[in-house]
Amino acid sequence: MNLSSKLLEDAVNALASLPSVGKKSALRLALHLINDDTDKAKKIANVLGILKDQIKYCKHCCNISDFDVCEICANPVRNRRILCIVESIRDVIAIEDTQEFSGLYHVLGGVISPMDGVGPDQLNINELIARVNSQEIDELIMALSPTIEGETTIYYITKLIKNTSLKVTTIARGVSFGGELEYADEVTLGRSIRSRLPYEIAQ
Amino acid sequence: MNLSSKLLEDAVNALASLPSVGKKSALRLALHLINDDTDKAKKIANVLGILKDQIKYCKHCCNISDFDVCEICANPVRNRRILCIVESIRDVIAIEDTQEFSGLYHVLGGVISPMDGVGPDQLNINELIARVNSQEIDELIMALSPTIEGETTIYYITKLIKNTSLKVTTIARGVSFGGELEYADEVTLGRSIRSRLPYEIAQ
Repeated sequence: MNLSSKLLEDAVNALASLPSVGKKSALRLALHLINDDTDKAKKIANVLGILKDQIKYCKHCCNISDFDVCEICANPVRNRRILCIVESIRDVIAIEDTQEFSGLYHVLGGVISPMDGVGPDQLNINELIARVNSQEIDELIMALSPTIEGETTIYYITKLIKNTSLKVTTIARGVSFGGELEYADEVTLGRSIRSRLPYEIAQ
Repeated sequence: MNLSSKLLEDAVNALASLPSVGKKSALRLALHLINDDTDKAKKIANVLGILKDQIKYCKHCCNISDFDVCEICANPVRNRRILCIVESIRDVIAIEDTQEFSGLYHVLGGVISPMDGVGPDQLNINELIARVNSQEIDELIMALSPTIEGETTIYYITKLIKNTSLKVTTIARGVSFGGELEYADEVTLGRSIRSRLPYEIAQ
């Protein structure tokens, strides 16, 4: 694709660097922004320009937040003795939307996946262990995607805390194996939180 | 969708203002940018920040260009007596990719579409007429999408120049009616330029 303008080409290349945006889509987006009268391009530029520098993470649960402690952790009504362990903020949003969970979260930032070069050190697992050791927590609900990587991560965390009296549960596997948590419908996801089961280490 | 951060919410809303990007996709893109180590967000912000202000249009053909005259119009090898009339720069790119056309272009910036509030005045039709009157041009190839709006636009332009000796042709309709030009494959599009036909005003 031979574009007539270096500036346009830069815009297309920048937009095409986004996941699941190809060159043709990027060109369509760039031309849309050029022809748009509401200064959308500037708005996007402004917010993306500060996004990475100004984004903060909750010092307790590692969720994205504008403050040191996120809204959920700061909410006095929530049950502080139950932690729901999730991969990403997308999963926090999905579970919050079900209105079935009133405890706190812990966002791992991914799952252990040697194929993708993600080991325990790249995840917020140390933060989780520190939290478990310093706070009175009764239960960890493992709400990770039901994949091999998710299972591995649950197994790894369970091994680390096996000397504590913590109850470890997993959300009921109404979610089909290999599926992604955030795309499950609210009913399925809500039910799977209600009917969570004690986690058993495979022998 | 209740996001935990105003900054993230701004980013999601800004990205979701792009065509065919929903809130979930926008959240995915925003989180991808936050987790990305190569400073993609800044790169996109930089290029989009200047895009609309610095983009220029070729003073002859209205194609997007970094200079007053675009590369195609400035190329001395190209046949200046044949103009290919297209809707947008995407169509210029598509036709250039076929390597079947060595003349110049004229980018209308759309087609006449009363339903969308686009009349002749919003398009670069006056520029085309001025060009036809001031330069020695033998032929106009109408390479507009084969839709009602495209047909209307061809009809309108043809009426305006009916007192000149200009030959008006349309690209052969290998492109199916109702289809969009930019998604035609190169062979079909190339062949349709070679086998263009004289345009006849319907009686």
